[in-house]
Amino acid sequence: MKRIAVFTSGGDAPGMNACIRAVVRGALYHGVEVYGIRRGYSGMIAGDIFQMNSHSVSNIIQRGGTILKSARSKDFLTSEGRRKAYDQLIGHGIEGLVAIGGNGTFTGALTFFEEFGLPTVGAPGTIDNDLYGTDYTIGFDTAVNTALDAIDRIRDTAGSHDRVFLIEVMGRDAGYIAVQAAIGGGAEMVMVPEVLTPISEVVDTLKEGWKRSKSSSIVIVAEGDDEGSAIQIGEKIKNLIDSEDLDLRVTTLGHIQRGGAPSAYDRILASRLGLGALEGLLAGQKNVMAGIINNELVYTAFEDTIRLPKPINDDLLRMVRILST
Amino acid sequence: MKRIAVFTSGGDAPGMNACIRAVVRGALYHGVEVYGIRRGYSGMIAGDIFQMNSHSVSNIIQRGGTILKSARSKDFLTSEGRRKAYDQLIGHGIEGLVAIGGNGTFTGALTFFEEFGLPTVGAPGTIDNDLYGTDYTIGFDTAVNTALDAIDRIRDTAGSHDRVFLIEVMGRDAGYIAVQAAIGGGAEMVMVPEVLTPISEVVDTLKEGWKRSKSSSIVIVAEGDDEGSAIQIGEKIKNLIDSEDLDLRVTTLGHIQRGGAPSAYDRILASRLGLGALEGLLAGQKNVMAGIINNELVYTAFEDTIRLPKPINDDLLRMVRILST
Amino acid sequence: MKRIAVFTSGGDAPGMNACIRAVVRGALYHGVEVYGIRRGYSGMIAGDIFQMNSHSVSNIIQRGGTILKSARSKDFLTSEGRRKAYDQLIGHGIEGLVAIGGNGTFTGALTFFEEFGLPTVGAPGTIDNDLYGTDYTIGFDTAVNTALDAIDRIRDTAGSHDRVFLIEVMGRDAGYIAVQAAIGGGAEMVMVPEVLTPISEVVDTLKEGWKRSKSSSIVIVAEGDDEGSAIQIGEKIKNLIDSEDLDLRVTTLGHIQRGGAPSAYDRILASRLGLGALEGLLAGQKNVMAGIINNELVYTAFEDTIRLPKPINDDLLRMVRILST
Amino acid sequence: MKRIAVFTSGGDAPGMNACIRAVVRGALYHGVEVYGIRRGYSGMIAGDIFQMNSHSVSNIIQRGGTILKSARSKDFLTSEGRRKAYDQLIGHGIEGLVAIGGNGTFTGALTFFEEFGLPTVGAPGTIDNDLYGTDYTIGFDTAVNTALDAIDRIRDTAGSHDRVFLIEVMGRDAGYIAVQAAIGGGAEMVMVPEVLTPISEVVDTLKEGWKRSKSSSIVIVAEGDDEGSAIQIGEKIKNLIDSEDLDLRVTTLGHIQRGGAPSAYDRILASRLGLGALEGLLAGQKNVMAGIINNELVYTAFEDTIRLPKPINDDLLRMVRILST
Repeated sequence: MKRIAVFTSGGDAPGMNACIRAVVRGALYHGVEVYGIRRGYSGMIAGDIFQMNSHSVSNIIQRGGTILKSARSKDFLTSEGRRKAYDQLIGHGIEGLVAIGGNGTFTGALTFFEEFGLPTVGAPGTIDNDLYGTDYTIGFDTAVNTALDAIDRIRDTAGSHDRVFLIEVMGRDAGYIAVQAAIGGGAEMVMVPEVLTPISEVVDTLKEGWKRSKSSSIVIVAEGDDEGSAIQIGEKIKNLIDSEDLDLRVTTLGHIQRGGAPSAYDRILASRLGLGALEGLLAGQKNVMAGIINNELVYTAFEDTIRLPKPINDDLLRMVRILST
Repeated sequence: MKRIAVFTSGGDAPGMNACIRAVVRGALYHGVEVYGIRRGYSGMIAGDIFQMNSHSVSNIIQRGGTILKSARSKDFLTSEGRRKAYDQLIGHGIEGLVAIGGNGTFTGALTFFEEFGLPTVGAPGTIDNDLYGTDYTIGFDTAVNTALDAIDRIRDTAGSHDRVFLIEVMGRDAGYIAVQAAIGGGAEMVMVPEVLTPISEVVDTLKEGWKRSKSSSIVIVAEGDDEGSAIQIGEKIKNLIDSEDLDLRVTTLGHIQRGGAPSAYDRILASRLGLGALEGLLAGQKNVMAGIINNELVYTAFEDTIRLPKPINDDLLRMVRILST
Repeated sequence: MKRIAVFTSGGDAPGMNACIRAVVRGALYHGVEVYGIRRGYSGMIAGDIFQMNSHSVSNIIQRGGTILKSARSKDFLTSEGRRKAYDQLIGHGIEGLVAIGGNGTFTGALTFFEEFGLPTVGAPGTIDNDLYGTDYTIGFDTAVNTALDAIDRIRDTAGSHDRVFLIEVMGRDAGYIAVQAAIGGGAEMVMVPEVLTPISEVVDTLKEGWKRSKSSSIVIVAEGDDEGSAIQIGEKIKNLIDSEDLDLRVTTLGHIQRGGAPSAYDRILASRLGLGALEGLLAGQKNVMAGIINNELVYTAFEDTIRLPKPINDDLLRMVRILST
Repeated sequence: MKRIAVFTSGGDAPGMNACIRAVVRGALYHGVEVYGIRRGYSGMIAGDIFQMNSHSVSNIIQRGGTILKSARSKDFLTSEGRRKAYDQLIGHGIEGLVAIGGNGTFTGALTFFEEFGLPTVGAPGTIDNDLYGTDYTIGFDTAVNTALDAIDRIRDTAGSHDRVFLIEVMGRDAGYIAVQAAIGGGAEMVMVPEVLTPISEVVDTLKEGWKRSKSSSIVIVAEGDDEGSAIQIGEKIKNLIDSEDLDLRVTTLGHIQRGGAPSAYDRILASRLGLGALEGLLAGQKNVMAGIINNELVYTAFEDTIRLPKPINDDLLRMVRILST
């Protein structure tokens, strides 16, 4: 392989730039030319493709977001769109792709390969950590640290006013961010999509805490929880605890969790996975995602990363309960 | 004066602990005994009053929240409640008070003095910076820095996805946090309660930006703006810009703005104001708030801090416009 | 076991408080009484031992340092001292110990067991990550993040002035912090005790960078490197590069790497290891250290953690080279 | 004036980029063309001059360092060098300059004007806050916050081990950073160039603290103190306190104080001063520095900023003493 291209797709995640840098520097190290594609599949179709060198990725390892930008592309869902994308890539002499993104990205790459035979190796870039085939995804550790920094701030107020705070964190259909934020934030409780937690259980936990004269409490709510958003859950709790003394507040952390300088963990993980994806592609891998499992680099077929669920660690859920004793 | 007491009241603000520390250490330095009252007027009535020494305030200058806690007190609104509070203070031999809080706190202190003659000197503790009689209030600088840190994170995503973000910041009826966050965050626009900004103007600004090929935009909305919350304003904008291409997101920063380690500015301001309030009280001041205006310590009558408005600096509003050129 | 005690020993590390909290809350959850010992073996001898409850560890998960304090103890090196320590523990009815620290701590515990039969289970608390029997030690991830934050700041200046910076990081005889800081900080080179790096190689790397028109360079030096401290290495480089144009600066990060709020990773790791050590002790383990290897809780004999080396990952060293291409 | 240029010179300071942005956007707003000069006087001589537009300064307000870079220039000290610089500027049609830097920068600009009549308006960019004509310089607030963050971390360790820490901060011949860091960091003592502090006084303060059972102490040392560096002062203290129990450590914060994202205060100050310098230049000002005194924009002749001393606030020195009571 003489020339490859790299792009980011799906929601941005801290560490994507570190991953791009590893792909580019790795390619140059191995004597391979490397191109960048802006705005994912959308830019592939539009031909927003340019050669990258070592300087292109200088001083970006510490930057959040993605210098290659990201966008949704309706056109890539059509065979016509994919044909245009292929023509653009061939026109630039691209022989293989490194895709940094999530399952949507990999599904597109798989279809693309089936039609045109152009191989892609993926790197898992999403804060949600919901991808089978890797212990952690790029951006997850930073998102948890950002959430914890916010929770630490809110705890100052919770403690000063003896309040109950419901804090909603991101994670789409997965509770990874929520569980880690709950343990690290010293929360009384966590509500995640993977486990059914009836409101009555939340109310019981709060009441038990008051009996042990806990003056303030924090409950972490994953955005995908079955009982609804933190705002909705707050309303339900207020309906069940009919007391003047309940001073309950709700806060939704929102988009701050997607940005910021990547943590040490994410910079190193992103560098390993970017290099791993690139070297896999050069070694002939195709339609697989590079991941780190038990500290070893592994490649998992896109079919499996897309299809297989990634269960949450029961030990961590147990810890939330024990540590709020 | 041989013995004084200090308390915090109203919403907590970063730097309140640094202020408490300055009152306590200052009192000890001047040979005066100092007591702490927990949960503001509520603890005053309940007699939650205890002697403090140098160790009581060790290692708190960097902590958010307030070690003396804060609470609302309905009872203090009644003359009966205030009588109980007075009896408690007299029982502990307290001859004067330092109150850290805002206008609600000072209004209470004024009534209390009129009835019982116990003097209070105040220190302005609120993130909103809406108090006449001081250039800045304790907690304001930290809140702006926290908001900016969040805006920096969101800008990573805005830039990566070419999005428009409406970001709602705190400030109650005042736009101070919003204006400073807008300048410091490089926002295209700011909406504050002090100035009427029709939605049509926001839409025009966004469209002009697109003409100049600005790919992403940030608009800061003060929580007290006349056009409604950021969520409501977002809906109005979507109704006026009927385009698939508008990728507009709304985020409300919320309670994170109240907590966290105080900034350098707030630690020093809080220390100066705590010491200033204490030394004012010892020198015979009463029913005044200590403030810093043009870098000088000044005392302003509670009547004036409560009654007089604090206009926003027009130069700053002009700067938001110029700097988004 | 009805009553146990917990203590910290050796250099403090961020996450020690989260670990103490997990031991205390875990013991209470299992119906076991738990005592704290202040200042490690020194307080054990002095009898600075007190009962802890759930409130004792409230609001400490986010704090750096250790609420139980740490100190060296010459007396514990004598059998007389250890006898006193044993008498104190027996006097308080302590049946087992959880020790949070490093190899010095565990060596003491092993001798203590051999003489008096009181069992200890350890948790690895040190920023250096130099303990066999766990992938990561408590405090390591935070120290790397602190180092990276400092490196990011220095890179601003390096880039603005086209300078070479030698940055010395901690790690005692191990290069773990240095290697991770080098990858995460985008350094051109890393010097670690585990690998001999002659000064001439550093000079060659810098010169090659200049040829590729790299205007600024960062070299990370582990404090235990064979070529000396960063200051000494800087002098050697200046002797070899006789040029006016070389603008080389040296900075030693120092003690900032030991403190600060623990990262998410360290809070969760510390919680797991604290709980793991406690539950191991209750289950009859003795003279072992709890560790996490490949995401599984494991117990390793003190003899092995003390005796066996923990090699550095070659892949990471290779990555520093490739990524500075 | 139809065309102006902007450059940075001297040591870099956080907020320089925000200042550049304000100059550029302000010029465009007023219909004036604006050029950037790279590497200060050095680039002026070399003709490293390029036109800037609104996009040139997008997304830089939060970045430390300076995108225009900075360098020393020996050539500009010669009349020949200055002649070259003038020819370059005239060749580019530049009619006026905005210089962001300190006294060295302004001295150069003054000589340049005397020889060639090209007007310069300055903006004070230095972390040291040692410039007459402005309450605060660009970068000072960020440097103090960075120092405080480091001191907070070190206090964790100081408290955990009952240690004395000497912490050296920057500031060249001025003690501004030291005094603010001492108040904000809760230090026992501060040593600054403006006040003679004999070592015996430091020793007395430490001993008094121990009598009051202060277990740990922090002393802030300004780099320009007459007693020498923190390392030298540490040696002197050890010679005077002949005790095994003295566990004294020294740390020098170093270059981390120059970098990092600027604080809110610095971003707003830099924006005001950049705009103020630009609008002053357009209004016919020359050889003056824009400053903010008592919240008002003022212009001070370069002669005065260079010649006049800026005394330190005695109230702040008094506060360090009182607050360590």
